[in-house]
Amino acid sequence: MRIAVVNCNTSEAMTAEIGEGARAAAAPGTEILALQPSWGPVSAEGFYDSFITAAAVLDLLTTVRDVDAVVMAGFGEHGREGARELLDVPVVDITEAAAMQALLLGHRYGIVTTLPRVRGQIHDSLVTAGLAARCAAIEATDLPVLAVGQDTDRTIEAFVEAGTRALAAGADVLCLGCAGFTAVRQEVSRALDVPVVDAVTAGVSMAEALVGTGLTTSKVGPYALPLVKTRRGWPVHSSTGARN
Amino acid sequence: MRIAVVNCNTSEAMTAEIGEGARAAAAPGTEILALQPSWGPVSAEGFYDSFITAAAVLDLLTTVRDVDAVVMAGFGEHGREGARELLDVPVVDITEAAAMQALLLGHRYGIVTTLPRVRGQIHDSLVTAGLAARCAAIEATDLPVLAVGQDTDRTIEAFVEAGTRALAAGADVLCLGCAGFTAVRQEVSRALDVPVVDAVTAGVSMAEALVGTGLTTSKVGPYALPLVKTRRGWPVHSSTGARN
Amino acid sequence: MRIAVVNCNTSEAMTAEIGEGARAAAAPGTEILALQPSWGPVSAEGFYDSFITAAAVLDLLTTVRDVDAVVMAGFGEHGREGARELLDVPVVDITEAAAMQALLLGHRYGIVTTLPRVRGQIHDSLVTAGLAARCAAIEATDLPVLAVGQDTDRTIEAFVEAGTRALAAGADVLCLGCAGFTAVRQEVSRALDVPVVDAVTAGVSMAEALVGTGLTTSKVGPYALPLVKTRRGWPVHSSTGARN
Amino acid sequence: MRIAVVNCNTSEAMTAEIGEGARAAAAPGTEILALQPSWGPVSAEGFYDSFITAAAVLDLLTTVRDVDAVVMAGFGEHGREGARELLDVPVVDITEAAAMQALLLGHRYGIVTTLPRVRGQIHDSLVTAGLAARCAAIEATDLPVLAVGQDTDRTIEAFVEAGTRALAAGADVLCLGCAGFTAVRQEVSRALDVPVVDAVTAGVSMAEALVGTGLTTSKVGPYALPLVKTRRGWPVHSSTGARN
Amino acid sequence: MRIAVVNCNTSEAMTAEIGEGARAAAAPGTEILALQPSWGPVSAEGFYDSFITAAAVLDLLTTVRDVDAVVMAGFGEHGREGARELLDVPVVDITEAAAMQALLLGHRYGIVTTLPRVRGQIHDSLVTAGLAARCAAIEATDLPVLAVGQDTDRTIEAFVEAGTRALAAGADVLCLGCAGFTAVRQEVSRALDVPVVDAVTAGVSMAEALVGTGLTTSKVGPYALPLVKTRRGWPVHSSTGARN
Amino acid sequence: MRIAVVNCNTSEAMTAEIGEGARAAAAPGTEILALQPSWGPVSAEGFYDSFITAAAVLDLLTTVRDVDAVVMAGFGEHGREGARELLDVPVVDITEAAAMQALLLGHRYGIVTTLPRVRGQIHDSLVTAGLAARCAAIEATDLPVLAVGQDTDRTIEAFVEAGTRALAAGADVLCLGCAGFTAVRQEVSRALDVPVVDAVTAGVSMAEALVGTGLTTSKVGPYALPLVKTRRGWPVHSSTGARN
Repeated sequence: MRIAVVNCNTSEAMTAEIGEGARAAAAPGTEILALQPSWGPVSAEGFYDSFITAAAVLDLLTTVRDVDAVVMAGFGEHGREGARELLDVPVVDITEAAAMQALLLGHRYGIVTTLPRVRGQIHDSLVTAGLAARCAAIEATDLPVLAVGQDTDRTIEAFVEAGTRALAAGADVLCLGCAGFTAVRQEVSRALDVPVVDAVTAGVSMAEALVGTGLTTSKVGPYALPLVKTRRGWPVHSSTGARN
Repeated sequence: MRIAVVNCNTSEAMTAEIGEGARAAAAPGTEILALQPSWGPVSAEGFYDSFITAAAVLDLLTTVRDVDAVVMAGFGEHGREGARELLDVPVVDITEAAAMQALLLGHRYGIVTTLPRVRGQIHDSLVTAGLAARCAAIEATDLPVLAVGQDTDRTIEAFVEAGTRALAAGADVLCLGCAGFTAVRQEVSRALDVPVVDAVTAGVSMAEALVGTGLTTSKVGPYALPLVKTRRGWPVHSSTGARN
Repeated sequence: MRIAVVNCNTSEAMTAEIGEGARAAAAPGTEILALQPSWGPVSAEGFYDSFITAAAVLDLLTTVRDVDAVVMAGFGEHGREGARELLDVPVVDITEAAAMQALLLGHRYGIVTTLPRVRGQIHDSLVTAGLAARCAAIEATDLPVLAVGQDTDRTIEAFVEAGTRALAAGADVLCLGCAGFTAVRQEVSRALDVPVVDAVTAGVSMAEALVGTGLTTSKVGPYALPLVKTRRGWPVHSSTGARN
Repeated sequence: MRIAVVNCNTSEAMTAEIGEGARAAAAPGTEILALQPSWGPVSAEGFYDSFITAAAVLDLLTTVRDVDAVVMAGFGEHGREGARELLDVPVVDITEAAAMQALLLGHRYGIVTTLPRVRGQIHDSLVTAGLAARCAAIEATDLPVLAVGQDTDRTIEAFVEAGTRALAAGADVLCLGCAGFTAVRQEVSRALDVPVVDAVTAGVSMAEALVGTGLTTSKVGPYALPLVKTRRGWPVHSSTGARN
Repeated sequence: MRIAVVNCNTSEAMTAEIGEGARAAAAPGTEILALQPSWGPVSAEGFYDSFITAAAVLDLLTTVRDVDAVVMAGFGEHGREGARELLDVPVVDITEAAAMQALLLGHRYGIVTTLPRVRGQIHDSLVTAGLAARCAAIEATDLPVLAVGQDTDRTIEAFVEAGTRALAAGADVLCLGCAGFTAVRQEVSRALDVPVVDAVTAGVSMAEALVGTGLTTSKVGPYALPLVKTRRGWPVHSSTGARN
Repeated sequence: MRIAVVNCNTSEAMTAEIGEGARAAAAPGTEILALQPSWGPVSAEGFYDSFITAAAVLDLLTTVRDVDAVVMAGFGEHGREGARELLDVPVVDITEAAAMQALLLGHRYGIVTTLPRVRGQIHDSLVTAGLAARCAAIEATDLPVLAVGQDTDRTIEAFVEAGTRALAAGADVLCLGCAGFTAVRQEVSRALDVPVVDAVTAGVSMAEALVGTGLTTSKVGPYALPLVKTRRGWPVHSSTGARN
């Protein structure tokens, strides 16, 4: 099985970390392609970045061949429905995957994430996915995306504090609301004595599960293949004005 | 990996069929224990049966040892939260698993099930699970649980008709709302040209995914271990009035 | 008029207290049968217990004859829909009855209950009943079910504290979220100057109201009589494998 | 016990019919005062009429003394929250009472009412009351309020047709969405084989139940007594500019 | 363009202030008629007052001719749907207008209002309008309606405090939940560094926008013209028992 | 006042038509800039196109200076939250504007749009905007975006048919769910006797209303200015890798 795990930003370090996390999560026999778009922000922190990355990731996906599933590894980022339209292999957004696994392990879940400003788009992403009903809280650590992992002790401390607030709000299971947090997951879980879902891990395991069933994306409704038409300057990576 | 797949009723034939479906769905190296309670109805079709099977399944689960996950293989049946409280390994209800996989494959999902009377409890199960927001329709075939599979042609025809109504109501992906339908899944999918999620398959693959992550059920909130206390005549299977 | 008031656990003391509360609530001419199941936990505190009591209560209800209504006197416990299917006389769950009377007396209601762990199942019960929209808070006292009433002063104090939190969250009327609290209702109401609904009282009065209208449970939808079928080892109390 | 049952319009015939229905519903020993406002429309069919009747009924209620409860007998009409603020005895809106009893007797309820135009305000009333979650349908007969009861056969036929549509939409219990329909209730119930809740009957029985509990309206939140202030030309019935 | 801006209470001073605010908000060429009902409370603070003002405003509106739109300038007050039924020109409730403009300027909005008791009716008004989904908080200053503006410093301080609580609850834009606050809007906005929507200003600008489109109120559904019928003692201002 | 009205696709003809509609809607003294992105699809019909246009429109908006507001003239398209983050002038999405004006003119609104496949994204857009609660139906004409206006008679007929279905589902006011339909609005309104909101007109008039109030977008929450960071290959139109 071959799964493309797509970082939404253009930070090679984060793509590498996501790839490493994905490989650690994957079953034996699953090959992980860790990809990143050729353009866009080095980190996505807000709606503006999120919509840029959505297009940059779709641009990238027009070139992806011979994979059995795509994992979109940007937490709370846009674009998953576009990828489902473009592709017929299963597309798993790590936001959805993390929420789903959390729903199976606890009664209400909390999200602990980076900057306060991204809480709104995570909330919108869960509402749109139809998964918000049992979300108890979305709490921020006030760490920028790229700071996560630089000072592991401070990162863990910040996540434990945010997690404590989420538990007080009624959560009994947490999701790490960012790609690339795999390293701190266990520390936070141990400190708070609750299961902590790493989103990339959740995404890979859910994608493997879907591939195993042989099911592919519905093509009779909103996710039918894109109409053939002129898309000026698109795909951007080649700028040949190709139709796709 | 060892997964207990628990039929909720006492029909050996259905337990066998569920076990067969589960084994077909399982990854190499996953051992499937197909179990059924020692008491309760031969089929569950309604709230009364559902609550009997919930207790009978919990009774059974007090005896289950050395499994890595439990799949509760009764579609729309009660009891999953009790199993989560009793056990710390992941517990996956096939109702949830099917809805989750459907959410990843389509924009809105429909359920096609057996008798009209069970639509209410399926609806309640999805609402309680926090997964109802993108459910477009729950449609019944008017086939009793045990009739499914007896006359394959008639079963397929009935499911295609119910599925057609669900698609007209806005679904673009379907779930088979019953355990033991594995055989007819492909026919219905082919006839309607949409992905059709088999619930047992979804349950097994989601359980494998969870086991792979190493996560276990939260024990700090509503799913904390049952208090130690006297439970008269319980477990029922041994009637020793044991405490558990 | 003859009303069966069914304690869900096997504590005789609590059944007696529930019966006493029910008789105090009943109109002249209403006969109260205070019943308890023959098996199951001595107190229900969590999902596991709740599903056991649901079956034990249904088991009991297969033997109940000649009553005009059934009041299910377990707050937040499962099984009411099964009882509605089994019987045609009105079935009133005290959870619903308390919430309904609270809705008529205040703008938003709060629940004050026993252990924190049961808040999840009370929430689910209200959501399933379609009565959660105006619930402002579910607050716990951290008193186990059987401790309630043992130390009246401490019980009252704990409920006043929990009630204060519920009012701060926007409630202007409270429900005691447990059977057998009748004694402390007035003290809490006096301390907080708000109406406090005792759930058993609410259940009995609502059952009387329904019996007075002559209406009985719908038998055309999900609450149609259970299908005739083999239910192995059921009813449990007699274990004759009878059909019902 | 003394209950004021308040018709919202100024049709003496309807007030008489409502009073008759209320007396038939009341327990022995309950005295029914059938009242109507001194001004306002002869029938309420729409938002404009509804807001006029809300004020006219509140105007009337400033003069009501020595009652144990008030039943507001206009289905889907406004004003109940104002009455709760003005009074401390329980105030039961028949819209709420009917929906509540229906929720106890079926899994989802339908409303059958008079003109199509009033469906919107009935819907709003149920949403505001927090009781809409299990409402399957609100269906109109196209009969004006005052035509109901004039031609009993046609009325029954029209309600059976509307009820059939509500059942097809998923209801398994119906409410008559108008005061003064008591006479046709049994015919509709017999024709469709479902329980049919008469709203006035529901209102009286729920008011009796509340009075029996001794509870009164919350005075600490939105239903605190009206502030003392100048209300020009109010109450209208006396036009003395009194303060109340 | 001629817009009637209707204060719901009978305080001339407040009507004058509302008129002044409306004129400041209006485009050149828009004529503002600042109106108030001939009867009813001098200020509306609660459900009882609100329903009185609803009828008094509708009474007034039966006499209003030759306007292009009506702005109902009572925040959280009842009656807008009745005005829409009576009139065909656009009717804009300042509660709706403020919420709508806030939705366009921020991700979630908060309301800061006068007395705690009115929070319930503001909440109900937003729910009924279908605008509550992104309301983060409704916070009260504990200032009575007529105190607002008397001591500007204290008023500003109180609103800044309430606004701070709303921002902490997740709002990033505020609405002043009362007519007649125009003067303090800028001070609060400056202190908290967020946009603060003045409801009267929002109402006037939205009414102008609607008039500019040429659209008028729907007359095919719940807002069809009132039926012609006897309305005893109505309109109240003339008490001629006229039909309208 | 100067308003940029941004077509989301790269069809010059549609940009011209949108500009014409916007100018017809604008007040005297409002200057309309009709813009389109320099890259992307010639029409947006689905999630894939929608996410491409979101980035292309944001790319364009990095170059827009000296406007008082931005109207995003793609119905149901993505990107509005990104534009709100990038800019501080008000940003009005025509989807929101149309729904808001419809809410003020009717009790429940319907959307009539182009291809069935776009219904999902329109639904998601309304849910995310917090405006879905009173949406009765989203109906498609099965006309591609660019076909609209080519054969006016057929277009009108198709919209009348879709509108008829929306009214049957409970709507009493309609929105044209596409930019560039201005020409057919009156015909559809006349045929169905309901107000029909043209989305571009609504967007322009709402933007003018907001500009008139002097309010600007909140910068303290999710719409705070984008962080300064490297965005590789962005903006795309100049590909200088600039920071913005």
